[in-house]
Amino acid sequence: MKDGSLQHLIQMFSGLPGLGNRSARRIVLHLLSGRERLMIPLAQLILRVAEDVKTCEICSNLEMVMPCSICQDEKRVRDQICIVAQVSDLWAIERTGAYKGQYHVLGGLLSALDGVGPEQLNLFQLLRRVEGEDIREVIMALSATVDGQSTAHYIADQLAAHPVEITHLAHGVPVGGELDYLDDGTISTALRSRK
Amino acid sequence: MKDGSLQHLIQMFSGLPGLGNRSARRIVLHLLSGRERLMIPLAQLILRVAEDVKTCEICSNLEMVMPCSICQDEKRVRDQICIVAQVSDLWAIERTGAYKGQYHVLGGLLSALDGVGPEQLNLFQLLRRVEGEDIREVIMALSATVDGQSTAHYIADQLAAHPVEITHLAHGVPVGGELDYLDDGTISTALRSRK
Repeated sequence: MKDGSLQHLIQMFSGLPGLGNRSARRIVLHLLSGRERLMIPLAQLILRVAEDVKTCEICSNLEMVMPCSICQDEKRVRDQICIVAQVSDLWAIERTGAYKGQYHVLGGLLSALDGVGPEQLNLFQLLRRVEGEDIREVIMALSATVDGQSTAHYIADQLAAHPVEITHLAHGVPVGGELDYLDDGTISTALRSRK
Repeated sequence: MKDGSLQHLIQMFSGLPGLGNRSARRIVLHLLSGRERLMIPLAQLILRVAEDVKTCEICSNLEMVMPCSICQDEKRVRDQICIVAQVSDLWAIERTGAYKGQYHVLGGLLSALDGVGPEQLNLFQLLRRVEGEDIREVIMALSATVDGQSTAHYIADQLAAHPVEITHLAHGVPVGGELDYLDDGTISTALRSRK
Protein backbone atom coordinates (compact mmCIF):
# COMPACT_ATOMS: atom_id res chain seq x y z
CA MET A 1 0.00 0.00 0.00
CA LYS A 2 1.36 3.39 -0.94
CA ASP A 3 0.48 6.20 1.40
CA GLY A 4 -0.76 9.69 0.61
CA SER A 5 2.14 11.77 -0.68
CA LEU A 6 3.79 8.94 -2.58
CA GLN A 7 0.49 8.04 -4.25
CA HIS A 8 -0.12 11.71 -5.01
CA LEU A 9 3.32 12.06 -6.60
CA ILE A 10 2.67 9.06 -8.85
CA GLN A 11 -0.66 10.60 -9.81
CA MET A 12 0.97 13.93 -10.71
CA PHE A 13 3.55 12.18 -12.89
CA SER A 14 0.89 10.04 -14.56
CA GLY A 15 -0.88 13.26 -15.61
CA LEU A 16 2.13 14.43 -17.65
CA PRO A 17 1.92 14.00 -21.43
CA GLY A 18 2.87 10.54 -22.62
CA LEU A 19 2.91 9.01 -19.13
CA GLY A 20 0.42 6.62 -17.58
CA ASN A 21 0.13 4.95 -14.20
CA ARG A 22 2.70 2.27 -14.90
CA SER A 23 5.35 4.59 -16.32
CA ALA A 24 4.73 7.10 -13.48
CA ARG A 25 5.31 4.37 -10.89
CA ARG A 26 8.53 3.34 -12.63
CA ILE A 27 9.76 6.94 -12.69
CA VAL A 28 8.93 7.57 -9.02
CA LEU A 29 10.68 4.35 -7.94
CA HIS A 30 13.67 5.31 -10.08
CA LEU A 31 13.78 8.74 -8.42
CA LEU A 32 13.49 7.18 -4.95
CA SER A 33 16.46 4.94 -5.72
CA GLY A 34 18.64 8.06 -5.98
CA ARG A 35 17.20 10.62 -3.63
CA GLU A 36 20.30 12.76 -3.01
CA ARG A 37 21.84 12.27 -6.43
CA LEU A 38 18.76 12.56 -8.63
CA MET A 39 15.45 13.33 -6.95
CA ILE A 40 16.34 16.45 -4.93
CA PRO A 41 18.43 18.02 -7.76
CA LEU A 42 15.54 17.42 -10.19
CA ALA A 43 13.05 19.12 -7.86
CA GLN A 44 15.39 22.06 -7.31
CA LEU A 45 15.98 22.46 -11.04
CA ILE A 46 12.21 22.35 -11.74
CA LEU A 47 11.71 25.08 -9.12
CA ARG A 48 14.51 27.23 -10.52
CA VAL A 49 13.26 26.94 -14.11
CA ALA A 50 9.65 27.59 -13.01
CA GLU A 51 10.70 30.75 -11.22
CA ASP A 52 13.19 32.10 -13.76
CA VAL A 53 11.77 31.19 -17.15
CA LYS A 54 10.31 34.16 -19.03
CA THR A 55 8.11 34.58 -22.07
CA CYS A 56 10.06 36.80 -24.49
CA GLU A 57 8.16 40.08 -24.90
CA ILE A 58 9.15 40.26 -28.55
CA CYS A 59 8.61 36.75 -29.95
CA SER A 60 6.98 34.82 -27.02
CA ASN A 61 9.77 32.24 -26.93
CA LEU A 62 10.40 30.72 -23.48
CA GLU A 63 13.85 31.33 -22.02
CA MET A 64 15.66 32.30 -18.85
CA VAL A 65 16.73 35.65 -20.38
CA MET A 66 14.57 38.48 -21.66
CA PRO A 67 14.54 39.29 -24.54
CA CYS A 68 15.32 35.70 -25.54
CA SER A 69 18.75 34.77 -26.91
CA ILE A 70 17.37 34.61 -30.47
CA CYS A 71 15.91 38.15 -30.38
CA GLN A 72 19.14 39.36 -28.74
CA ASP A 73 21.46 37.67 -31.24
CA GLU A 74 23.01 40.40 -33.42
CA LYS A 75 24.30 37.85 -35.91
CA ARG A 76 20.83 36.61 -36.93
CA VAL A 77 19.00 37.97 -39.97
CA ARG A 78 16.58 40.65 -38.77
CA ASP A 79 14.22 41.01 -41.75
CA GLN A 80 12.75 37.48 -41.68
CA ILE A 81 10.09 36.33 -39.22
CA CYS A 82 9.19 32.66 -38.99
CA ILE A 83 5.71 32.14 -37.52
CA VAL A 84 5.24 29.01 -35.42
CA ALA A 85 2.33 27.80 -33.32
CA GLN A 86 4.27 26.61 -30.27
CA VAL A 87 7.65 26.97 -28.65
CA SER A 88 8.24 23.27 -29.44
CA ASP A 89 8.01 24.11 -33.16
CA LEU A 90 10.59 26.86 -32.70
CA TRP A 91 12.87 24.36 -30.96
CA ALA A 92 12.34 21.87 -33.81
CA ILE A 93 13.37 24.44 -36.42
CA GLU A 94 16.34 25.59 -34.34
CA ARG A 95 17.57 21.99 -34.08
CA THR A 96 17.92 21.85 -37.86
CA GLY A 97 20.23 24.87 -37.84
CA ALA A 98 18.77 25.73 -41.26
CA TYR A 99 17.18 29.05 -40.28
CA LYS A 100 18.97 32.17 -39.08
CA GLY A 101 16.13 34.71 -38.86
CA GLN A 102 13.65 35.82 -36.19
CA TYR A 103 10.64 33.92 -34.82
CA HIS A 104 7.14 34.68 -33.67
CA VAL A 105 5.34 32.17 -31.45
CA LEU A 106 1.55 32.40 -31.81
CA GLY A 107 0.78 30.29 -28.74
CA GLY A 108 -1.67 28.10 -30.65
CA LEU A 109 -3.71 27.91 -33.84
CA LEU A 110 -7.10 29.36 -34.75
CA SER A 111 -9.67 26.64 -34.19
CA ALA A 112 -13.41 26.88 -34.54
CA LEU A 113 -13.75 23.47 -32.89
CA ASP A 114 -11.69 24.36 -29.81
CA GLY A 115 -13.03 27.91 -29.71
CA VAL A 116 -9.66 29.60 -30.28
CA GLY A 117 -10.14 33.01 -31.89
CA PRO A 118 -7.62 35.60 -33.11
CA GLU A 119 -7.65 37.42 -29.77
CA GLN A 120 -6.23 34.35 -27.98
CA LEU A 121 -3.11 34.31 -30.18
CA ASN A 122 -0.14 36.71 -30.19
CA LEU A 123 -1.36 38.31 -33.42
CA PHE A 124 -1.43 41.94 -32.36
CA GLN A 125 2.23 41.77 -31.34
CA LEU A 126 3.02 40.21 -34.75
CA LEU A 127 1.31 43.03 -36.65
CA ARG A 128 3.20 45.57 -34.55
CA ARG A 129 6.49 43.87 -35.40
CA VAL A 130 5.74 43.80 -39.14
CA GLU A 131 4.79 47.49 -38.99
CA GLY A 132 7.58 48.63 -36.70
CA GLU A 133 10.56 46.55 -37.78
CA ASP A 134 11.90 46.38 -41.31
CA ILE A 135 10.52 42.92 -42.20
CA ARG A 136 11.04 41.56 -45.70
CA GLU A 137 9.67 38.01 -45.41
CA VAL A 138 7.15 36.24 -43.18
CA ILE A 139 7.53 32.44 -43.22
CA MET A 140 4.46 30.44 -42.17
CA ALA A 141 5.83 27.35 -40.42
CA LEU A 142 2.40 26.06 -39.37
CA SER A 143 1.11 22.49 -39.39
CA ALA A 144 -0.36 21.14 -42.63
CA THR A 145 -3.73 20.71 -40.89
CA VAL A 146 -7.03 22.53 -41.33
CA ASP A 147 -6.32 24.72 -38.29
CA GLY A 148 -2.75 25.39 -39.36
CA GLN A 149 -3.73 26.39 -42.87
CA SER A 150 -6.69 28.56 -41.83
CA THR A 151 -4.44 30.34 -39.32
CA ALA A 152 -1.92 30.95 -42.10
CA HIS A 153 -4.67 32.37 -44.33
CA TYR A 154 -5.95 34.62 -41.56
CA ILE A 155 -2.46 36.01 -40.90
CA ALA A 156 -1.83 36.52 -44.63
CA ASP A 157 -5.09 38.53 -44.78
CA GLN A 158 -4.03 40.65 -41.84
CA LEU A 159 -0.65 41.35 -43.43
CA ALA A 160 -2.10 42.09 -46.90
CA ALA A 161 -1.65 45.85 -46.44
CA HIS A 162 2.07 45.49 -45.72
CA PRO A 163 4.78 45.02 -48.35
CA VAL A 164 6.07 41.72 -46.98
CA GLU A 165 6.61 38.50 -48.87
CA ILE A 166 4.64 35.62 -47.34
CA THR A 167 6.05 32.13 -47.80
CA HIS A 168 5.01 28.67 -46.61
CA LEU A 169 6.92 25.50 -45.77
CA ALA A 170 7.03 23.20 -48.81
CA HIS A 171 4.72 20.19 -48.76
CA GLY A 172 5.97 16.89 -50.09
CA VAL A 173 7.40 13.48 -49.33
CA PRO A 174 9.28 13.47 -45.98
CA VAL A 175 12.99 12.76 -46.40
CA GLY A 176 13.41 9.02 -45.85
CA GLY A 177 9.67 8.47 -46.26
CA GLU A 178 8.41 5.51 -48.25
CA LEU A 179 5.73 6.32 -50.84
CA ASP A 180 3.82 3.20 -49.94
CA TYR A 181 3.11 4.48 -46.43
CA LEU A 182 2.18 8.06 -47.36
CA ASP A 183 -1.39 9.31 -47.52
CA ASP A 184 -2.92 10.28 -50.87
CA GLY A 185 -2.97 14.00 -50.03
CA THR A 186 0.79 14.15 -49.49
CA ILE A 187 1.53 12.16 -52.64
CA SER A 188 -0.72 14.28 -54.89
CA THR A 189 0.70 17.50 -53.38
CA ALA A 190 4.23 16.24 -53.97
CA LEU A 191 3.29 15.37 -57.57
CA ARG A 192 1.81 18.81 -58.23
CA SER A 193 4.86 20.52 -56.70
CA ARG A 194 7.36 18.38 -58.59
CA LYS A 195 10.53 20.10 -59.74
CA MET B 1 17.75 27.96 -28.87
CA LYS B 2 17.18 26.74 -25.32
CA ASP B 3 19.52 28.11 -22.72
CA GLY B 4 21.34 26.30 -19.94
CA SER B 5 18.86 25.47 -17.18
CA LEU B 6 15.98 24.69 -19.53
CA GLN B 7 18.20 22.40 -21.61
CA HIS B 8 19.51 20.79 -18.43
CA LEU B 9 15.97 20.16 -17.16
CA ILE B 10 15.02 18.46 -20.44
CA GLN B 11 18.16 16.34 -20.15
CA MET B 12 17.29 15.28 -16.60
CA PHE B 13 13.78 14.28 -17.65
CA SER B 14 15.07 12.39 -20.69
CA GLY B 15 17.20 10.28 -18.35
CA LEU B 16 14.14 8.97 -16.49
CA PRO B 17 13.00 5.41 -17.35
CA GLY B 18 10.79 5.27 -20.44
CA LEU B 19 11.48 8.87 -21.48
CA GLY B 20 13.59 10.12 -24.37
CA ASN B 21 14.48 13.54 -25.69
CA ARG B 22 11.19 14.13 -27.45
CA SER B 23 8.96 13.07 -24.54
CA ALA B 24 11.13 15.05 -22.10
CA ARG B 25 10.68 18.20 -24.21
CA ARG B 26 6.91 17.65 -24.30
CA ILE B 27 6.78 17.21 -20.53
CA VAL B 28 8.89 20.31 -19.83
CA LEU B 29 6.77 22.45 -22.18
CA HIS B 30 3.63 21.06 -20.54
CA LEU B 31 5.00 21.98 -17.10
CA LEU B 32 5.96 25.46 -18.31
CA SER B 33 2.41 26.01 -19.53
CA GLY B 34 1.19 25.75 -15.92
CA ARG B 35 3.96 27.06 -13.73
CA GLU B 36 1.94 28.05 -10.66
CA ARG B 37 -0.68 25.36 -10.99
CA LEU B 38 1.46 22.38 -11.93
CA MET B 39 5.22 22.90 -12.10
CA ILE B 40 5.92 24.41 -8.67
CA PRO B 41 3.54 22.01 -6.82
CA LEU B 42 5.22 19.05 -8.58
CA ALA B 43 8.69 20.22 -7.53
CA GLN B 44 7.56 20.79 -3.96
CA LEU B 45 5.93 17.36 -3.79
CA ILE B 46 9.08 15.68 -5.17
CA LEU B 47 11.12 17.48 -2.49
CA ARG B 48 8.73 16.48 0.28
CA VAL B 49 8.62 12.83 -0.77
CA ALA B 50 12.43 12.74 -1.21
CA GLU B 51 12.92 14.09 2.29
CA ASP B 52 10.22 12.11 4.07
CA VAL B 53 10.15 8.70 2.41
CA LYS B 54 11.68 5.96 4.54
CA THR B 55 12.80 2.40 3.91
CA CYS B 56 10.85 0.23 6.37
CA GLU B 57 13.34 -1.32 8.82
CA ILE B 58 11.29 -4.53 8.92
CA CYS B 59 10.38 -5.29 5.31
CA SER B 60 12.28 -2.60 3.27
CA ASN B 61 9.08 -1.23 1.72
CA LEU B 62 9.22 2.48 0.86
CA GLU B 63 6.73 4.68 2.69
CA MET B 64 6.37 7.96 4.52
CA VAL B 65 5.84 6.18 7.85
CA MET B 66 8.15 3.80 9.69
CA PRO B 67 7.45 0.92 10.16
CA CYS B 68 5.46 0.90 6.92
CA SER B 69 1.65 0.76 6.98
CA ILE B 70 1.69 -2.95 6.04
CA CYS B 71 4.01 -3.96 8.89
CA GLN B 72 1.95 -1.77 11.24
CA ASP B 73 -1.43 -3.14 10.13
CA GLU B 74 -2.79 -5.30 12.96
CA LYS B 75 -5.47 -6.78 10.70
CA ARG B 76 -2.99 -8.45 8.35
CA VAL B 77 -1.93 -12.09 8.72
CA ARG B 78 1.37 -12.15 10.62
CA ASP B 79 2.66 -15.67 9.88
CA GLN B 80 3.03 -15.33 6.10
CA ILE B 81 5.93 -13.51 4.42
CA CYS B 82 5.82 -12.82 0.70
CA ILE B 83 9.31 -12.30 -0.74
CA VAL B 84 9.57 -9.84 -3.63
CA ALA B 85 12.56 -8.45 -5.48
CA GLN B 86 11.46 -4.80 -5.67
CA VAL B 87 9.01 -2.39 -4.09
CA SER B 88 7.23 -2.26 -7.47
CA ASP B 89 6.47 -6.00 -7.13
CA LEU B 90 5.02 -5.38 -3.66
CA TRP B 91 2.82 -2.64 -5.13
CA ALA B 92 1.72 -4.97 -7.94
CA ILE B 93 0.64 -7.67 -5.46
CA GLU B 94 -1.07 -5.09 -3.21
CA ARG B 95 -3.07 -3.81 -6.19
CA THR B 96 -4.64 -7.24 -6.61
CA GLY B 97 -5.93 -7.18 -3.00
CA ALA B 98 -5.48 -10.98 -3.01
CA TYR B 99 -2.81 -11.13 -0.29
CA LYS B 100 -3.20 -10.12 3.34
CA GLY B 101 0.14 -11.20 4.87
CA GLN B 102 3.54 -9.58 5.38
CA TYR B 103 6.21 -8.75 2.78
CA HIS B 104 9.94 -8.78 2.51
CA VAL B 105 11.62 -6.70 -0.22
CA LEU B 106 14.99 -8.14 -1.23
CA GLY B 107 16.13 -5.06 -3.13
CA GLY B 108 17.14 -7.10 -6.19
CA LEU B 109 17.91 -10.63 -7.33
CA LEU B 110 21.07 -12.70 -7.13
CA SER B 111 22.83 -12.36 -10.47
CA ALA B 112 26.19 -13.78 -11.45
CA LEU B 113 26.12 -11.65 -14.59
CA ASP B 114 25.48 -8.36 -12.79
CA GLY B 115 27.68 -9.34 -9.86
CA VAL B 116 24.89 -9.26 -7.27
CA GLY B 117 25.75 -11.56 -4.37
CA PRO B 118 23.75 -12.54 -1.25
CA GLU B 119 25.36 -9.75 0.81
CA GLN B 120 23.82 -7.07 -1.47
CA LEU B 121 20.26 -8.26 -0.75
CA ASN B 122 18.23 -7.92 2.45
CA LEU B 123 18.71 -11.62 3.25
CA PHE B 124 20.12 -11.35 6.76
CA GLN B 125 17.09 -9.37 7.86
CA LEU B 126 14.83 -12.04 6.30
CA LEU B 127 16.54 -14.86 8.22
CA ARG B 128 16.18 -12.86 11.44
CA ARG B 129 12.47 -12.41 10.79
CA VAL B 130 11.93 -16.12 10.10
CA GLU B 131 13.83 -16.97 13.29
CA GLY B 132 12.36 -14.27 15.49
CA GLU B 133 8.74 -14.04 14.36
CA ASP B 134 6.35 -16.96 14.24
CA ILE B 135 6.36 -17.50 10.46
CA ARG B 136 4.42 -20.42 8.99
CA GLU B 137 4.77 -19.78 5.23
CA VAL B 138 7.29 -18.04 3.00
CA ILE B 139 5.91 -17.23 -0.47
CA MET B 140 8.49 -16.70 -3.22
CA ALA B 141 6.98 -14.08 -5.51
CA LEU B 142 10.06 -13.78 -7.70
CA SER B 143 10.25 -13.48 -11.47
CA ALA B 144 10.19 -16.66 -13.54
CA THR B 145 13.68 -15.87 -14.85
CA VAL B 146 17.04 -17.56 -14.24
CA ASP B 147 17.97 -14.92 -11.64
CA GLY B 148 14.56 -15.07 -9.97
CA GLN B 149 14.59 -18.84 -9.69
CA SER B 150 18.19 -19.11 -8.50
CA THR B 151 17.45 -16.47 -5.85
CA ALA B 152 14.43 -18.51 -4.73
CA HIS B 153 16.58 -21.64 -4.51
CA TYR B 154 19.24 -19.83 -2.52
CA ILE B 155 16.67 -18.51 -0.04
CA ALA B 156 15.03 -21.95 0.27
CA ASP B 157 18.47 -23.38 1.11
CA GLN B 158 19.05 -20.74 3.76
CA LEU B 159 15.66 -21.45 5.32
CA ALA B 160 16.04 -25.26 5.19
CA ALA B 161 16.81 -25.44 8.92
CA HIS B 162 13.58 -23.65 9.84
CA PRO B 163 10.15 -25.32 10.00
CA VAL B 164 8.53 -23.00 7.43
CA GLU B 165 6.57 -24.00 4.37
CA ILE B 166 8.08 -22.53 1.21
CA THR B 167 5.69 -21.90 -1.69
CA HIS B 168 6.09 -20.39 -5.16
CA LEU B 169 3.77 -18.45 -7.45
CA ALA B 170 2.07 -20.84 -9.87
CA HIS B 171 3.35 -20.86 -13.44
CA GLY B 172 0.88 -21.15 -16.29
CA VAL B 173 -1.08 -19.38 -18.95
CA PRO B 174 -1.69 -15.69 -18.05
CA VAL B 175 -5.38 -14.93 -17.57
CA GLY B 176 -6.60 -13.60 -20.92
CA GLY B 177 -3.50 -14.94 -22.67
CA GLU B 178 -3.81 -16.61 -26.07
CA LEU B 179 -2.01 -19.93 -26.39
CA ASP B 180 -0.83 -19.03 -29.87
CA TYR B 181 1.29 -16.17 -28.54
CA LEU B 182 2.82 -17.97 -25.53
CA ASP B 183 6.34 -19.35 -25.49
CA ASP B 184 6.91 -23.12 -25.40
CA GLY B 185 8.24 -23.06 -21.82
CA THR B 186 5.05 -21.54 -20.44
CA ILE B 187 2.81 -23.93 -22.38
CA SER B 188 4.70 -27.04 -21.32
CA THR B 189 4.78 -25.86 -17.68
CA ALA B 190 1.05 -25.18 -17.81
CA LEU B 191 0.48 -28.65 -19.29
CA ARG B 192 2.54 -30.37 -16.57
CA SER B 193 0.76 -28.38 -13.84
CA ARG B 194 -2.70 -29.08 -15.26
CA LYS B 195 -5.47 -29.60 -12.72
